Amino acid sequence: MTRKASIIGGGVIGGGWAARFLLNGWDVAVFDPDPEAERKIGEVLANARAALPALSDVPMPAEGRLSLVPTISEAVAGAEWITEAVPERLELKRKVYQEIQETAAPGTIIASSTSGFRPTELKGCATRPDEIIVAHPFNPVYLLPLVEVVPGESSAEILENAMETMWSIGMFPLHVRKEIDAHIADRFLEAVWREALWLVKDGIATTEEIDEAIRMGFGLRWGQMGLFETYRVAGGEAGMKHFMAQFGPCLKWPWTRLTDVPDFTDELVDLIAGQSDAQSGKYTIRELERIRDSNLIGFLRALKDRNWGAGKVLRDHDERRRAAFHDGAGTGEGAPPVMAHMQVLPGWIDYNGHMTESRYLFAASETSDAFLRLIGAGMDYVAAGHSYYTAETHILHLGEAKLGDRLTGTLQVLSSDEKRIHAFIRIERGDEVVASLEQMFLHVDMKAGRACPAAPDVLARLAPIAEAHRALPRPDAAGRHVGQRKS
Amino acid sequence: MTRKASIIGGGVIGGGWAARFLLNGWDVAVFDPDPEAERKIGEVLANARAALPALSDVPMPAEGRLSLVPTISEAVAGAEWITEAVPERLELKRKVYQEIQETAAPGTIIASSTSGFRPTELKGCATRPDEIIVAHPFNPVYLLPLVEVVPGESSAEILENAMETMWSIGMFPLHVRKEIDAHIADRFLEAVWREALWLVKDGIATTEEIDEAIRMGFGLRWGQMGLFETYRVAGGEAGMKHFMAQFGPCLKWPWTRLTDVPDFTDELVDLIAGQSDAQSGKYTIRELERIRDSNLIGFLRALKDRNWGAGKVLRDHDERRRAAFHDGAGTGEGAPPVMAHMQVLPGWIDYNGHMTESRYLFAASETSDAFLRLIGAGMDYVAAGHSYYTAETHILHLGEAKLGDRLTGTLQVLSSDEKRIHAFIRIERGDEVVASLEQMFLHVDMKAGRACPAAPDVLARLAPIAEAHRALPRPDAAGRHVGQRKS
Repeated sequence: MTRKASIIGGGVIGGGWAARFLLNGWDVAVFDPDPEAERKIGEVLANARAALPALSDVPMPAEGRLSLVPTISEAVAGAEWITEAVPERLELKRKVYQEIQETAAPGTIIASSTSGFRPTELKGCATRPDEIIVAHPFNPVYLLPLVEVVPGESSAEILENAMETMWSIGMFPLHVRKEIDAHIADRFLEAVWREALWLVKDGIATTEEIDEAIRMGFGLRWGQMGLFETYRVAGGEAGMKHFMAQFGPCLKWPWTRLTDVPDFTDELVDLIAGQSDAQSGKYTIRELERIRDSNLIGFLRALKDRNWGAGKVLRDHDERRRAAFHDGAGTGEGAPPVMAHMQVLPGWIDYNGHMTESRYLFAASETSDAFLRLIGAGMDYVAAGHSYYTAETHILHLGEAKLGDRLTGTLQVLSSDEKRIHAFIRIERGDEVVASLEQMFLHVDMKAGRACPAAPDVLARLAPIAEAHRALPRPDAAGRHVGQRKS
Repeated sequence: MTRKASIIGGGVIGGGWAARFLLNGWDVAVFDPDPEAERKIGEVLANARAALPALSDVPMPAEGRLSLVPTISEAVAGAEWITEAVPERLELKRKVYQEIQETAAPGTIIASSTSGFRPTELKGCATRPDEIIVAHPFNPVYLLPLVEVVPGESSAEILENAMETMWSIGMFPLHVRKEIDAHIADRFLEAVWREALWLVKDGIATTEEIDEAIRMGFGLRWGQMGLFETYRVAGGEAGMKHFMAQFGPCLKWPWTRLTDVPDFTDELVDLIAGQSDAQSGKYTIRELERIRDSNLIGFLRALKDRNWGAGKVLRDHDERRRAAFHDGAGTGEGAPPVMAHMQVLPGWIDYNGHMTESRYLFAASETSDAFLRLIGAGMDYVAAGHSYYTAETHILHLGEAKLGDRLTGTLQVLSSDEKRIHAFIRIERGDEVVASLEQMFLHVDMKAGRACPAAPDVLARLAPIAEAHRALPRPDAAGRHVGQRKS
C-alpha cells in the first residue's frame, strides 16, 4: 500500500520535503494557508522532477499523489509521517503540534524542520511529547542527503523509526545525540555567516568576493570530506596531531571574530586525534590523498561540463593553451585531416584498466563534431533546426588506449551526397590506429524529423574536402560486417 | 624560453606549488633543508601527475624540469617567480626574504603562502618591500584554483604581474583589496574550526559526525555557490532581503560561540542586498535554482561513481529499490533476456536534446556486462586475469531516446565458441527498439594479451543460454555493413 506523508507548511523547505516523498512513491498531503502555496510547491516539484531522477541508476517508483488540503486534520489523517515546516516561531510550532495531535494516530512521528530549536523546547506541554522530534534538512531537500535527526528525550523506537523513514527516501540521517541550539551544521553556518557580515561591514570583501573565496577553495573540499578528515590529510604523513600542533597557536591569534575559544589542552588534542583515528584510520594518508583528489576531479569536471565556478577557470585555462596545440586542420591532401586531440582521462577507464568501450565512440563523436563545425554545421546550425544524425556505425577495436594516452581523431570522407556523409574515422595513438569507425551521417530537419538536403553553403564546404579525399586509399575495414574474416 | 619558478620550502604546500608549475611547463628549483624533501616532493608530484591532467581537455605542455638545490641563492637565480612556503614564523619568513633579495633580480615577486600574516607584517624592514606579497593557496595546490593575492602596499604593476602569473598556471587569483589577519577564506575556516573544537570538547559530536554534517549537506553547496548566492536562492522568490529578514534575528540567539556580532542595521541589510544584486542579479531565482541543482547532480554523480560520501548514500538507496524492479533474467526462452534497466539521465543528452551517440554503446556495455556477470565472467573473473574484450561492433540507430526515457537492454547470443561470443543487443524503449548493436566479444588472457579459451564453468553457463537462443529468430540487422541497403 502507498505510504502517506503529511507536510505542514509548503515553503521552500516544506515543498522540498513534499517533492522528495512524492518522487520516492509516497502520497503527500500538504497544509499551507498561503493562497500561493499550490503554485510554489508546483515549482519546487518541477525542479525536483528534473533533478532527483538523474541521481538514480534504477528506475524510480511511480510518483505518489500530491494533495493540498484546507485543514491540518485532513493533512494528517492516515499519515505515517508528519513534517512540520512552518516559520521559526516557537509558539506557532507548539500550536501546530497541538492541533496535529488532536487528530493524528498515536505513535505518529511529528518531525520539525527547525534550524535552531531544541526538541525539548518544541515539545513544551504537548500531550504526547515523545512523538515530537527534529529532522532538520538542507535546501534543496530533494537533492541534499543530510537530515539531522534530534530525538531529544524521545524513545529509542521513535528514533529508529525516524532514521529508517529517512533512509527509505534516500536521505542520510545524522543522529544528533545531545541536543543543542542550531544542532550541528547550522552552528557552522551561523559562525560563517556572522564572520561574513563583519567582512562586508568592514569593507574587507564584497558578497561576491566572499563567495569566490569559498567555492574556489575549501567549499570544493567540503563536499567530499569534512573539516577533520581534510585536515588530517593536510597534516601530511604526520597526520592529525601534526596539523593541530601547527595550527593550535592560531587559536590565540585574531584570525576570526570568534574569540571565545576552548583551552587547547593535551586532553583536547588527544580526544580529537583519537576520534580522527577511529574515523579515518582505516586509510593511510596517501590513500586519503588519492581519494580526495579523485573526488575533486569529479567535482571540477562536473563544473567544467557546466561552465560554472571553478569549471569556468578550467575552461579559460584550456583556451589559453589550445592555440599552442592547434594543428591547423587542412582539407586532407595526402592524409585525412586531424580533427580532434584528446587525452585519455581517468573517467574513461573501465575495470580492466583500459579505455572503456563507449569512449571510443565518444572520441569519434568529438572528431565528427569538429568536422561538422569545419563545414559549417556546428552548434549555430543545429540551433537553427538542422543537424547531421548518425544512422549507423561499425567499430573495429584494434588496440587498447590507456590512462593518459594522447589520441588524435582523423576523418576521411568516403562518399557524400546532399543528404549523406559516409565517413571513416581513425582514433590514433601516435602512428597506431587503436580503433576505426565507419559511420553514416544523415542530414535531418530536426523539427520535421526527416532527412533533407543540407544547406548550400555546407555542401559547398563539404564538396572540395570530399573531392580531395577521393584520392586517398579506401580503408580495408570499410564495408565490413561484424565477424567478417579479413581478406 | 621555459619560465622558471623558485620554491622556498618543500612541504605539502611548497610541493603542491612545485607540481602545479611543473605540470604547466615551468622549470622549478626548490630549496628545502629537510633531507626528506626530495622524497616528499616526489610523492606530491606523483599525486599531481595522476590528477591535474584529468582536468584538461587540451594536451598538457611538456613537464618542466625539477631541481632540488642546496642554497636559496641557487634556487632564485634566473627565477621570475619566487614562492615562500616555510613554517608560519614571522622572523623566519623575514630572514628568508632578506636572503632571497640579496640574489634575486630586482622586480622579482616573492609570494608568501602564509595562511595568516598580513603583507605589511611580512615586509618588515626588507630592502625591496614592494616585491613581497601574499599568494595564499589551498591544499591540494595542484587541483584547487583559489589563491588569495594580497598586495598590501605593493604597486599596481606587481599586483597585475602576480595575477597574470597565477592565471597562467590555471589558478583563480582573488585580489584581497584590504589586508586583514588570515585574509578571507581562512577566517571562515578558523571560525568553523573553533566552533568544532567546542562541539567535540562538549561531547555534542565526534569528528566523524561533524564531518558528515558538513559533507552531506552544506559542503556540497559550497563547491559551486558560496554563502551569499546560496542564501539568495534559499530566500526563494523574495530573494536576499527576505532571507535576511528571516534569519537576522538568529544573530541574537546562541546558535554559535561566535557571539561578537555586528549590529543588524538597515544599512547592513541594504549593503548586502545591493552587493548580492550586483553579484547574482543577472539570473532569476528560478535560473539559479536550476544551475545549483545541475551542479549538485554533477557532484553527487561524481561521488556515486567513486562510492564515497553522499555517493554511498545514493548507491545504498538504489540497492534498496533495485529488488522491486528486477525482472529475474531467465535464459531467454521465447525472447532474449532483459539484462539491464536504464533511465536516460541529463548527462546523456547532447546539444540536439537527444541521447548522445556514445551513450547507446554505453547502454550496450551495461547490458553485456550484466550478461557476463550472469555467466560468471564478472569483476572477480577479471581481477583473476581474464576478460571478454569487444573486438567489433555494428550499431544501427533506429530511434531517438530522450531525457527520462526508461530503456531496457536485451542480449541474444547469435553464436559462440570457446573464445568468442557473437551477440545481438537491443536497446528498447517499451516495445520500440531505439538502437541495435551486433558485437563480437573475444575472450582474452589479459596478462599475456592474447585470446584464449574461457574457463570451463563460464562455458558451462554460456552453453545452455546459447542453445536456447538458437531457437530465436535471427535479427535482420545481423551481418550488415554500414550503408547496406535494406533487403
